[in-house]
Amino acid sequence: MTAFDLKAYVNDRRHQADEALAQALPEIDAAGGDPGRLKEGMRYAVLQGGKRMRPMITIAACEAAGGSVTNALPASCALEMIHAYSLVHDDLPAMDNDLERRGRPTVHVAFGHAQAILIGDALLTRAFEVLGRGAAGISGDRIAAAMTRLAHHAGIHGMVGGQALDIQHGQDIHALELLERVHALKTGALYAAGGAMGALCGGATEAQVRDLEAWGLKFGIAFQHADDILDDDQQALRPQALARVDQLVGECDGLAAQFGVRAEPLRALARWVADRAHAAAAGVKAD
Amino acid sequence: MTAFDLKAYVNDRRHQADEALAQALPEIDAAGGDPGRLKEGMRYAVLQGGKRMRPMITIAACEAAGGSVTNALPASCALEMIHAYSLVHDDLPAMDNDLERRGRPTVHVAFGHAQAILIGDALLTRAFEVLGRGAAGISGDRIAAAMTRLAHHAGIHGMVGGQALDIQHGQDIHALELLERVHALKTGALYAAGGAMGALCGGATEAQVRDLEAWGLKFGIAFQHADDILDDDQQALRPQALARVDQLVGECDGLAAQFGVRAEPLRALARWVADRAHAAAAGVKAD
Repeated sequence: MTAFDLKAYVNDRRHQADEALAQALPEIDAAGGDPGRLKEGMRYAVLQGGKRMRPMITIAACEAAGGSVTNALPASCALEMIHAYSLVHDDLPAMDNDLERRGRPTVHVAFGHAQAILIGDALLTRAFEVLGRGAAGISGDRIAAAMTRLAHHAGIHGMVGGQALDIQHGQDIHALELLERVHALKTGALYAAGGAMGALCGGATEAQVRDLEAWGLKFGIAFQHADDILDDDQQALRPQALARVDQLVGECDGLAAQFGVRAEPLRALARWVADRAHAAAAGVKAD
Repeated sequence: MTAFDLKAYVNDRRHQADEALAQALPEIDAAGGDPGRLKEGMRYAVLQGGKRMRPMITIAACEAAGGSVTNALPASCALEMIHAYSLVHDDLPAMDNDLERRGRPTVHVAFGHAQAILIGDALLTRAFEVLGRGAAGISGDRIAAAMTRLAHHAGIHGMVGGQALDIQHGQDIHALELLERVHALKTGALYAAGGAMGALCGGATEAQVRDLEAWGLKFGIAFQHADDILDDDQQALRPQALARVDQLVGECDGLAAQFGVRAEPLRALARWVADRAHAAAAGVKAD
């Protein structure tokens, strides 16, 4: 048995997601122009590299369900645009007031404050347009279901709700339970949407959609715990968080088992999160 | 022949839209709580009365195509939520910095600046969740198409693009052509979405969807010209704007003719806009 080559998988899928994103964003055409440089700002906010973890999970869930990468690309682009809009708005002066992201000026610094609000709004809206157009061969019922899952997880009962909870509690989070609730909403929800949308676009049954949605949620929480450990955040909660990563990754594997060899990418991605968390906790920088 | 009773029609449909909106917005339940008062803010932003013109047009287009009010309610709610989010974000300090709307504090004044950004984001997202859930008997294909039209008209090539154009030109609009481009994007686009979505939910053919979308765009531009005349804006362009209202309303009637008696509400609404513009131009306050 050959070991699954996660690095090759990730590079290939990321490349496809990057190409699809460049196509899915509005072109800065000479005819329509670009009032307020909003189209330029949308591209700036999204096309600045990044791991493309959310598209990756969407694609891997689609493949686990028996679909192709192509089937998953519109949903993958939609999810990454939602993620990008949330960063643009979170960086605003009234929110986190961040001036740099990945070594470049944040959108409101580069394009202006009013423009950054509109660029975020435009990205959030564009996500649903891209998803609505869908991919060849995906039924309207599945697209409508994917839209509903995406909107649910991105909204008041998901990511936006998590942002509100985070603002409410600020640095005052001293219990793993509350920390996990914030992680589940702020981070987990979009991964859950990726799992559900990938499953829907891959032709999964309703039960499989629910299982891959649950897989995404658990993966997202584990991923965020691992990030906390890497960033040296939440030090008091670290041993508990590390134990939770192992538990969540185990639950992910349980949910993925039914998909057999087609879930190899999902398994490898979950394993990578666990390895990353353990290496960070041991003070070693993981790959 | 009995004259169509527009007042009774508008009161009835507005009442149904108001009830549907109250149901479509998140409940402030004891269990989930309301961190940051976001759910309260979403309800505050939407449930403050208003003419519900966009739901009205969505319902009337659906009825023209042969559908029922119930068929059109999810799309109507979605459209009104998009309109409401746009007001919340437009009122922000970085945008128009408005402190009052309809005699009440704007959302950022009542709920805080960061909260207002999130409340707008949550409303925009909720719109697609409500639309995605759809109404009984509407096919997934039609829902997906409605979502695509809504996202298109609300986004960079519609309302958000219009906002950018408006910011770019500010008070410096001295030609009817540019003024109409701003009106078409900022106001007309959402009415176009209402026409298209109503048609889709009412079972219209593709050609009818395009015609009712065009009806909505023309109606929206005429409506905004009438508003300008009422508000005493753009005085230098007034005679031209009034002539354009008549022309646009005539084009609306041409597009509605194919729907016969079922388009009576659309015709009466367009006629009301024309009457309003003429009364305002003559210095008489219309009903």
